[in-house]
Formats: sequence, C-alpha cells, structure tokens
Amino acid sequence: MEKYKQSGLPIKERVDDLMSKMTLREKVGQLNQRMYGWNAYEKQEGGAYALTDAFMQETAAFGGMGALYGLFRSDPWSGVDYSNGIAAGDSAVVANQIQRYMLEHTRLGIPVMFSEESPHGHQALDGTMLPVNLNVGSTWNPALMERAYRLTAAEIRSRGAHLALVSVLDILQDPRWGRSEECYGEDPYLASAFTKAVVRGMQGDWSQLAEADRVAVILKHLSAQGAGIGGKNAGPASIGERELREIHLPAAMAGAKAGAAGFMAAYNEIDGIPCHANSKLLTGILREEWGFEGIVMADGQAIDRLLALTGGHEAAAALALSAGVDLSLWDKSFTTLEAAVLSGLVDESYIDRAVARVLRLKFELGLFDRPYTDETKAASVVGSEDIRRINLAIARESVILLKNNNMRLPFDANVKRIAVIGPNADRIYNQLGDYTSVQRPKTGSTVLQGIRMAATEGVEVVYAHGCGIRDASTGGIAEAVETAKAADVAVLVLGGSSTRQFGDLFDGNGEAVIAGERPAEMDCGEGVDLADLRLGAAQIQLAEAVAATGTPVVVVLIQGRPHAIGEVDELADAVLCAWYPGKEGGQAIGEILFGQVNPSGKLPVSLPRSTAQLPVYYNQKDPGRPRVYVDMTPAPLYAFGHGLSYTSFEYRELGLSAATIAAGDLANGERVKVAVKVKNTGDVAGPETVQLYIKARESMVTRRIAELKGFVKVALEPGEEREVMLELGADELGIWDSSMAFAVKPCKVEVMVGGNLQHTLRAELAIV
Amino acid sequence: MEKYKQSGLPIKERVDDLMSKMTLREKVGQLNQRMYGWNAYEKQEGGAYALTDAFMQETAAFGGMGALYGLFRSDPWSGVDYSNGIAAGDSAVVANQIQRYMLEHTRLGIPVMFSEESPHGHQALDGTMLPVNLNVGSTWNPALMERAYRLTAAEIRSRGAHLALVSVLDILQDPRWGRSEECYGEDPYLASAFTKAVVRGMQGDWSQLAEADRVAVILKHLSAQGAGIGGKNAGPASIGERELREIHLPAAMAGAKAGAAGFMAAYNEIDGIPCHANSKLLTGILREEWGFEGIVMADGQAIDRLLALTGGHEAAAALALSAGVDLSLWDKSFTTLEAAVLSGLVDESYIDRAVARVLRLKFELGLFDRPYTDETKAASVVGSEDIRRINLAIARESVILLKNNNMRLPFDANVKRIAVIGPNADRIYNQLGDYTSVQRPKTGSTVLQGIRMAATEGVEVVYAHGCGIRDASTGGIAEAVETAKAADVAVLVLGGSSTRQFGDLFDGNGEAVIAGERPAEMDCGEGVDLADLRLGAAQIQLAEAVAATGTPVVVVLIQGRPHAIGEVDELADAVLCAWYPGKEGGQAIGEILFGQVNPSGKLPVSLPRSTAQLPVYYNQKDPGRPRVYVDMTPAPLYAFGHGLSYTSFEYRELGLSAATIAAGDLANGERVKVAVKVKNTGDVAGPETVQLYIKARESMVTRRIAELKGFVKVALEPGEEREVMLELGADELGIWDSSMAFAVKPCKVEVMVGGNLQHTLRAELAIV
Repeated sequence: MEKYKQSGLPIKERVDDLMSKMTLREKVGQLNQRMYGWNAYEKQEGGAYALTDAFMQETAAFGGMGALYGLFRSDPWSGVDYSNGIAAGDSAVVANQIQRYMLEHTRLGIPVMFSEESPHGHQALDGTMLPVNLNVGSTWNPALMERAYRLTAAEIRSRGAHLALVSVLDILQDPRWGRSEECYGEDPYLASAFTKAVVRGMQGDWSQLAEADRVAVILKHLSAQGAGIGGKNAGPASIGERELREIHLPAAMAGAKAGAAGFMAAYNEIDGIPCHANSKLLTGILREEWGFEGIVMADGQAIDRLLALTGGHEAAAALALSAGVDLSLWDKSFTTLEAAVLSGLVDESYIDRAVARVLRLKFELGLFDRPYTDETKAASVVGSEDIRRINLAIARESVILLKNNNMRLPFDANVKRIAVIGPNADRIYNQLGDYTSVQRPKTGSTVLQGIRMAATEGVEVVYAHGCGIRDASTGGIAEAVETAKAADVAVLVLGGSSTRQFGDLFDGNGEAVIAGERPAEMDCGEGVDLADLRLGAAQIQLAEAVAATGTPVVVVLIQGRPHAIGEVDELADAVLCAWYPGKEGGQAIGEILFGQVNPSGKLPVSLPRSTAQLPVYYNQKDPGRPRVYVDMTPAPLYAFGHGLSYTSFEYRELGLSAATIAAGDLANGERVKVAVKVKNTGDVAGPETVQLYIKARESMVTRRIAELKGFVKVALEPGEEREVMLELGADELGIWDSSMAFAVKPCKVEVMVGGNLQHTLRAELAIV
Repeated sequence: MEKYKQSGLPIKERVDDLMSKMTLREKVGQLNQRMYGWNAYEKQEGGAYALTDAFMQETAAFGGMGALYGLFRSDPWSGVDYSNGIAAGDSAVVANQIQRYMLEHTRLGIPVMFSEESPHGHQALDGTMLPVNLNVGSTWNPALMERAYRLTAAEIRSRGAHLALVSVLDILQDPRWGRSEECYGEDPYLASAFTKAVVRGMQGDWSQLAEADRVAVILKHLSAQGAGIGGKNAGPASIGERELREIHLPAAMAGAKAGAAGFMAAYNEIDGIPCHANSKLLTGILREEWGFEGIVMADGQAIDRLLALTGGHEAAAALALSAGVDLSLWDKSFTTLEAAVLSGLVDESYIDRAVARVLRLKFELGLFDRPYTDETKAASVVGSEDIRRINLAIARESVILLKNNNMRLPFDANVKRIAVIGPNADRIYNQLGDYTSVQRPKTGSTVLQGIRMAATEGVEVVYAHGCGIRDASTGGIAEAVETAKAADVAVLVLGGSSTRQFGDLFDGNGEAVIAGERPAEMDCGEGVDLADLRLGAAQIQLAEAVAATGTPVVVVLIQGRPHAIGEVDELADAVLCAWYPGKEGGQAIGEILFGQVNPSGKLPVSLPRSTAQLPVYYNQKDPGRPRVYVDMTPAPLYAFGHGLSYTSFEYRELGLSAATIAAGDLANGERVKVAVKVKNTGDVAGPETVQLYIKARESMVTRRIAELKGFVKVALEPGEEREVMLELGADELGIWDSSMAFAVKPCKVEVMVGGNLQHTLRAELAIV
C-alpha cells in the first residue's frame, strides 16, 4: 500500500509521499474550491440524489478538488429549499455519495473537504440558526457559547461536512455596515474571548479534528473589514499597522493561538494592499509571528478581484498564492495556477507549500482513513433538544435592557391587556439575520408568540402590524393606535431586518404574510449598508402615534446593527435591545417581559444618537482633551458595556495585588490580581457582568480612553455578595511600542472595575 | 569683530562661530518661542509703546529668544484691537524697539524673529484679510495666488516681522471639521499647486529671504490633520503610511522642494505617534528623504501635550527635540531643555542641531546684518490698492455657480426689485473666516452692499435679516416673506459663520447690530466642529417660506465648510457657493449676480447630501464595484471640480503624444503631452478650468477612482477655441509601490480631460 494510505505513519510522511506522486495539475486541483455544492447534485423524483455532469467534469479536470463549498446551504441565492435541497436526514448519504465518487474516480483518490457557512449556527436546511454575533457579544458569556459552538459543530460534522466558515474577526466600528450583525461588537478583547470559544467549542485542537462531532474552523475575515470606509461593505481600510494590531488583529491572534485550522482572507484592502495580496499579513504576521500552520482560504471570488492589480488571472493567482492564500473560493484565477507556474509567474514551491497545508488538514481531519460519515447520526444530532435549549439560553442572556423607567418592566399584575405592535412582532425570519437558511414553517417563536407563551393566566394579548420596516406606508398606524388605546401597555417591536427574498414569508402560525417585498423591508445584511441610522420613518410615526394614546410604551428592538433610536427611546418607558435573537428569541423576550428571566445582556457596541456622530466606539484614542461638536454631544446614546437588570448591584473594595510592578516581571509571567466585591442589592436573582477596563498613559505611544481587559459574569442571589478575581498580565498590559514591538513598557495604569464603564471603582497601577 | 558678525563670511562659518560662544542656556533660548508678542509691549497714553517687564525677564532668562509670536495679532483671544494694539503705521517702530532691546541687552546680541499668523492674508490690525483657503482652492489659479501671497508677504515684512505661519497642508476629508475653511480642498495635487504658490509668492527661495518684501514661510500642519477621527479638531488619525504619502504629504513635499523655510508640526497623532514625537516624519521623511534644511516649529503648546506620553516636561522636550522639532510655541517643555540635557535625557548634539537650524534662518533673513526695518514703509504697503484689487480678483474667481436653472443668473432687465435676505447678507465678519483680526468699520463690502453697488440704474434693493445662522428663532421670517413677495427675485444669503466674539458686530454701514451672540451664531472655525452638516434649522424654514411666495430664489452660500444643503438647493433656481470671500467678497458677488463678472470657480471639495454619507471626497480608493447605501446614493450633491459659467464650453480632440511609454523613460524625465481643444460655445467671455484626471489600474497596489494630475485655467472669448497642453511625467504617474518606494510602474492609465470629472474625454495610456 502507498505510504500516504497507511494510517499508522506520521502525517508529514504521508503528505510528502502523496505530493511526490502528484502531477502539477493534481496539485492545483487541491488548491481549488471552485464549485457550489448545491450544483454537485440533483434531487431525483423519489428522493435519491444524482451527481451532476458539472461535478464530474470539475473532478476530472484537476483529478480532484481541494474543497466543495455549500453542500447543504440554503438561501435565495442558491435557490435551495426543501423541494430541491438536502434535509438533515439525507445529508451524510449525499456527502458520502460525493466522497465515494471522488475517491473512486480520481487517480490518487484524494478525498474532498466539504465547507459550510456557519456565521451563527449552520446555514443549512434544518441547521439550527443561533442568534447572530451581536447577540453573542451581548451575552458576555464565552463559556455558554463554547457549549453552543460544540453543538453546532456536531450538527455540521454529523452531516458529513468538515470545514465551518465562522464570522468572528470583524470589529464593528461603523454601524452603517450591513455586516454589523456578524461582529461580536466593537471591542477586540471581547471578540478574542468569543473567538477562543469558537475554536475550543467547534474544533478543539488539531488532535481532535478527526472526531465525529468536530469541524475545522475557518475564521473570517482577516483583517480589518470593520474599518471599511463609510461603512460600505468590503470598503477600503486606510488604517496603519498599529491600529490594525491593536483593534483588528487581536481576535485573529487569539484564534491562531487557540489552534484554529484556518483563516479566510478579507475582501478589503488595507492601506493599498488587498488582504488577498498581503504577504505581510498572511505570511509575515499570521505564520511567522504567530506560528500558524493551517490553511488560508480566499473569500468568494476575491482572487479574481485582484485582476484590478494584475490585469490577468494567472498573475492574480500568482500574487495571492505567493502572499499566502492556499485555497480558493469560486475563483477562476486559481484554476490557472498550472499555467502560471509554467509561464514562470510563480515558483512551484509556492504551489507545494499550499498543497502541503491543504493535504495536512485533510489527513488531520481523518479523511484518508475514514472518508465516510455515519449516515444515521444527523437525524438525532441536527436540531436536538440540547441545541434548542442552548439556543434559548443564548437568546435569554443576550437581550439588553437599555432603559427601564420606574421599573416598568417586568410586567406586574396590573398588566391585563397587552398590545403587541410593530413590523418585527410576528416575523420569525426577521429574528434570524442574514446567512439564514429556509426554515420549516411553525418552528421557533416570534415575539408575539413568546409574549403569548409567557403571559400569565387572564392576560390578553392583542396584535397589530402597524407598519413596515422601511416602507413609507402609514396605513396600518390607525389600527395600531386603536389596539394600543385599549391596552395597559403597548409593546412596540421595531428595528430592522436582514430577511432576504425567500418567496412567501410566513408568520408564527405558518401563514404567508408577505410576498416579494423584502427589498423594501431589508435594511441590514451583507451588501445592505445604511447611511442614515434612524429607524424607517413610518416606525417613528407609529411609535409617536402609539405613545400619544397615553398607554405606556415598551420598545423591543429587533435589529442587526445599532440604529439611532433617539425619538423612540425618548417616548418609551422601557427599551429592550434584542438584536436578531434567533428562533427561540420570541420565547426569551416573552420571559424577560414577564420577569421569568432577568435580563443580563450588556452592549458590545455603543449606540449612536445619530450617524452624524460616527464613529462612537468607546475605545478611541485619547485626544487628551474632550472633543465636542457645537451641535451635539459626541457621547453615544447608550455606551459599550451598558445594560440594566431587574435587580441592582453594588461594587466595593477594589484591590490590586500590587500597586507597582516591574515591566520585566510582567514579561516573565507575573500577573497583577484584581479583586472586587460585588453584591446583589435587589430583590431578585440575576447575573452581573463585572467589567475591567484600563486607561493607561505615559507609555511613549498614545493610548485609548479605555480598554476592556477582563470580564466575568456571575450569578447572584438577592443579597448575595461575592468576591470576583480578575488578572492583568503581559497580554493585557503589553502594548505595540513605538518601534512596533509587543512589549510591557513602564507606564501608569488606571484600573477601572464595574458593571459598565460609566460607573467604576478605580485603582492606580504603576508599571516601572 | 567676532566672525559671526562679519557679513562677508559664509553663513555656515558664522553659525559655527556663534554657537562656539554660546552657553547651553543661551542655546536653549534660541529654541523657545514662549511669549505672545502682544504681551511684550504696552501702548502708552500719547501713542508710544513701552516694553513690558515680562518681556525683559523672558529675554534675560535665556539670554535671548528664538522667536516672538504675534506682535501684531488681533483677535478676541489676544484682546488686541485698535485701542491697545499696533496699527500698520506703528508696526516697524515697535518691532525695531523690541529688536533693539534684544540686541543691546543680551550677551551675544542675537536678533529675534517675529512670527505672524497668515492663514489668509495677515491676521493683524490693518492686515489685509484675503478670502480663506477654500476660496483659494476654488479659483484653480495658483498664478493669481502667487501674486497675492507676494503682496501679503510685503505687508508682513514691511511691519518688521519675518515668519509667516501659513495654512497650506491640511486636506479636507471630513467637512465636520471646523478648520475645513483652512484647507485648499480635498485634493493633494491642487493643494500642492497652491503650496508652491505660497512659497514662491511669499518667500521666493532662500537667497531672497533677506529682501524687504519677503518672509520665511512656515507651512502648516505636518501632517494628516485632515484625517482626524469624526472631523474632530486635532483628532487622532489612524491612517497608514501609503494613505499618508498619497494624500497628506504631497503638498508638504511640494513646499519643501520649492524651498520653504519651515514647517509646523500638527497637533494630531498618526497611528499612535503624535506628530511632534514623530521622528520618521520630521526627520526621516522631511529631512532625509526630501533634503529639507529649514526649521520645524511646534504648534501652540503641542510639546506640553506630549506629557501624556512622557509624564514630565523634560522628557517631553527631549522626545520632541530628538524627533526633529526645533522651535517651540508657547510651551513650558522646551524651557526645560537645559535640565533635560544635564540629566541625560537628551544629548546636547540634538540641541546643537536645532540651534544651528534656527540661527541659519536668522542669518539668511539678514537679521544679523540689517536687524531693523524701514519705519516708513508699512504705511504705504499695508492695505495698498494693489492688494485690495487682488483681494477682489480672488473673490471674483472663487465664487462657484453650483446651479443655474433656466439661466436665472445673471439678472436680466426684468429684475427691477431685489429682496436680499438672510443672516449672511450684511455681516462683513461672516465673510472673513476664522483667524481674522479686528476690522476698521466701514471697510470692505457685504453681499447687500455689493448688490447695491452692482445694481443697474432703477433697480431697487430691499433687505431683511430673516433669521440667525444657528439660533432657532423664527421671528424674522414673516418680514422676510413680505420683503420677498414684493420682489422680482429673492437673494437668500445663507450658510455659516466663523465669526468670534469681537464685542459689537457691525454691519456694512458701521452700525453695531449684534452683541454677544456669536457662540450661538458660530458653526465653523478652529475647535468649532459640527456633526450635522445641515444649515441651521431656521435658515431652512426661512428658505422654504420665501420660496413659498413664488418669487424666484437665488441662494448665496457664505460658509467655511461644505454644508448639506439639499432642501435649499431643491427650492432655489440658482445657487452660488462663495465660502468666506473676504472683504471684497460682497462686491464680487454683486458683480456676478448682475453678469459684470462671469463666475469661474470650481469646487475644490465635494458637497455631501448628508453627514450620513461621509466621506464623499472624490479620490477614494476604487473598490472595484460601486458601493451604495440602501437609503441614499453615495454620490455627493455636487462633486469636486464642478462649477458652472454664464457661457458654455466644448471639448474635442483629446490626444496623447504617446499611447505607450516605458516606465524607465518616464523615470528618466520623459513626459507624455496631453492636448485638447476647448471652445467657448456661448455668448459671453469667460475662463474655463481644464482638468486632467487619471484612473490607473494593474499597478500591483490599489488605485483611486480618479486622481487630479493637471489643470489650467484659460480665458476664452465667445466662439474662441484654444488648444490646451498639459503634461504627465514621473511625478504624476509614479506611485508608492508595494514596497513603499516611489516609482513609475507598468500599468494602464485612463487619461480623462474636461471641465469637471463627470464630463470628460478619455484616452488610454499604457505604461510598460
């Protein structure tokens, strides 16, 4: 038997052996991921699947392929739904069928990897859609997310797929950006914590890649996509290296250090160099500095976009390959790599470098030894009760109580009749965000349904749609006003939508309610950037009309980005920000409104008063003196870290293990312990997120107004007090110094601990 | 006689000799410009001037001083006006008195330099205030400006001052910034052209520094102040080196190559390093790359701001000095340099380096040989008829006709009664911008006066104030409406104001009309940043009410930044943008309205529709595909380069001297000639600005949507056609390549020539 087929041998030997047998063309095949998986099969009458000619031709062209994208993906672009796509139970059957063809009809029998979108759960027919990343960031609970990601990985692998493309690296600096929802928020430390949770939860380390409930994660996007100009999707980032390292790279570094198998390069350029052509980023920083040994995948057709730099496909491929891209996505360019080598545009050693990385990952995934997936497993793993429960738990922890005047929430016994009003009250898709698959009707809960579920005996719940998300029609407002008049409280469910054109859109009862009007409804999602962050005008009119009835108003925001909600915030007694809370989001919101769950979300991003203020992220460079506008405060409406509870917390006795510490000692691993006592001073149990910020000065480079450097979420019973311990070490206190080296430098550090940045206890730490 | 006093010896020898005699403390004195000039004297009863104790103490403390700032400056901060300041006739007397004290009361008799603000003319009592830089940029006429700067230099030097601090380097990328008015616009090529005009006009080369009508120019600010975050003054710039070199440094390089004597460092940081601590910028790029040998001056108290990095004054001084700052401005830090050297914080060689630069400049200025100024000259030079005429010429060429539906302008014989309405119609200070000295009443012309001056026999001009710039009061609107009803046309003079608190504000007739309400009126100027770019709300109401009368509306904008004028533009038949057109601006606008002058200004900056669109500058990186917002176009309301005329122009026969050229030939000095024919196809004479843009691709780094690379303003009689020749060489076609070297690279270049970027003829150039 050939060495590469011998499972007992070290992977390095197997890779070398296999590569020694491969033609240049076969090698190039391993660097290509050109095809959509949904074009590889056709569902037959009777339910079987036939492989397409296109797939067989693609396989034959290069004697194999590196990966196949989106076998299970369902959405309006792919046109895949339950009529023609692969539901959970069939998944492994089809995956195995394709893999078998690949093994049996190529000369060397190199297995293919299946890659799947997993920006929030698994974007596949029957795949569980979790709340979007803005919700994840709002939980401030990476441990919870690690468990959730573990279950998502199990769903994906049980269906026979191997690579999960996961949004984790983008930092939300401009909420005009339609992909805001895919960010954990505006803070690199918070994003790093969740990136580690993704890697640990989905993948574990490289030794676990072959396990039946693990997938290799491809972390996206590398890098600085959140710094795109004007909030425009894939817009150029003009930032410098320090800004890149301080803000945009920490999550990527955390992912690399945690053992991520892959990264996806970002569409955008950084200071004139597209990420896909950025050798310093993809090779210098990623591999040489961080020691990363996995693969770098291109974003969709991103290498072809390099034609703007090179003029030709071969040169574009040569540029990307030599910069450090290993595996393409839907590109023509990488299919020309054989010609590029033969014409001298790129040395074959670059091909070998990339092929070795791809093959190594396939070996680590166990594909050469156990290429087929247990065909019985997905039926019980996908959509399990475990993942439904954790989906609900995330939703519960991610809802942020922004405002609660006179403790309007939770509803008390006097609330007998509730008017639920608004465009997001009864739209399950609007809770799910972009990158969502076609859903089975009557699954999940809308806000209206959640309120009905949570309502106590004798409470009446009435509903009016009111108006659309963005269309100007105000015809439904009169009915909404009538509904509100007769109620004890009006719950206005407003916000935005990333719902794409799925044909008919159905409500919580499975009835089709909207057909063909999503382009007007949609205000968020990839490529859907918004200039003016105010809510659609009819929503403001609706809110004002409802408030004018005198019925108290509670606003629930379902949205994929921070909107500028000034007018609506003003008239509401209470405001909940729920982002896109997922399929169980309605239930979670109902429980919170009725006090069955105590809200504990904290903002992972600052909410601006107006687009005119942008940017408002909290961790801006400290200009030394306050900077104001003549016509408005520069302060956001609600700041990063803010979030109320139905109980209250008191902090005391902030203490540091040392007031002075040597930079050298920190560099050698010493850490400063930060202790604080936090007490639940209210009447109900509730979790509190203790946040630790630093504000440093006198370190020879400029510093930020505040930097999050630690947090922990603790559950406290009424009256309970607990001492929380956090730590600051070289990772937290080091900086990119004036010569752009990461080092601990003498400086003064104000350590601030509290439930948000506005209310903290403070202590001074001197690094000498 | 000591060698340094011997005028026949080479300056280098004189500097060396003098430095060999100086104590460390005396050297430190030469690096300080700590005092305000207006605190150096007191005006006595009877008109004589006495030197203050403070001045004598400061002189004694260091045995001299490097420079003295603002001997003639007048404004609300200095509190200097005609009661206590130095009018033109007295200037040289006082300057000589101070210089004489300096020479006679210090051990070595080293003369002092007097530095003066000259952001648009000379900000001094009686100094001529020219239109602001946004107007200058709008003229597209550097030759005109070179003549104007020459006259400003003569004004300054005739009064005995030596250094002119000139705003030339800032690029207007965010119109929220209050210093927008100080920018030539958003384009580096345009800014470079005017920067060269400043250096040539004011200074000539170093050999001319001693001439009696020249000053040494200090170009400000170095660098990237226009990239400050959120348009906030002195806000951090997070840009990378390529963005810095492509956009923010070209004007500085042009100034250095033209022989500028000095640069002022900028307040802001660039990617974590304050400019005053930026050794790469102030020494690496400025001196080592560009060969600059003049002085670097600090901005006001900017070195003290470095305490955020260092914690102490001595360390801040050491940091700035070693980075390349030579001369302080109002700082305490640089006074501690002796202690910094003695304590080992900085090597004395850095002191010597800076002192040698300062002394060299003093020798070049002739101060050791002819320290005193002719006391009779200023009376005739300051405010001469020549400078008044050129002031008017700039105003005429800088007014931009944005819109002219149905040729509403110029007024025809049917216009018999004109209603002039609005907060900027009769306010001379509102035409002058920030950095303006106290003016003599009844000088200059307001828009109202200008219209009266230009109005032909029998035309009646009536006036109503209408409303304020930013206050919400609408009490004056009714009167304005009545005034408009009875008129054939309403001229609405709207916009903004950078007018500071000068005590009573007087109208064109010298009558005080506003006292103490400038904080509410002001929406622009240094430190006056605006978030929402719409005009003050009462102005929009005023415009809507006036338009509702049915009387045709012509809008004249007096403003220091691009406002978002959508509502007003919509209702107007014609719109003129006049920025802050200076003291003769009213006359120029009157002449344009009546067709006595044909408007020829072109926008040097794009006008946004809304703050929500920012940034809108035209020369953004090309993202390869159009990027839009779901709720609004990303296009500005009026784009860079736009400007109408009372005549029309036709372009034809664009031709290149070569369709293909070798990169090496360009690098060796070959140039591509670009010829185009432009014809005046209308009925009146008028100047046209022919603009040349390139759009390049396939150069291995990303390129911009368009880049201005040439322009020329030509005057054409009706029916006249002329062939215009422009050239493209290595300066225009070179780029900062992927290894950050400036080089001509093979690429494809689309050459676009026309009267604005939207309407161009195109030709392809291949660089091979």
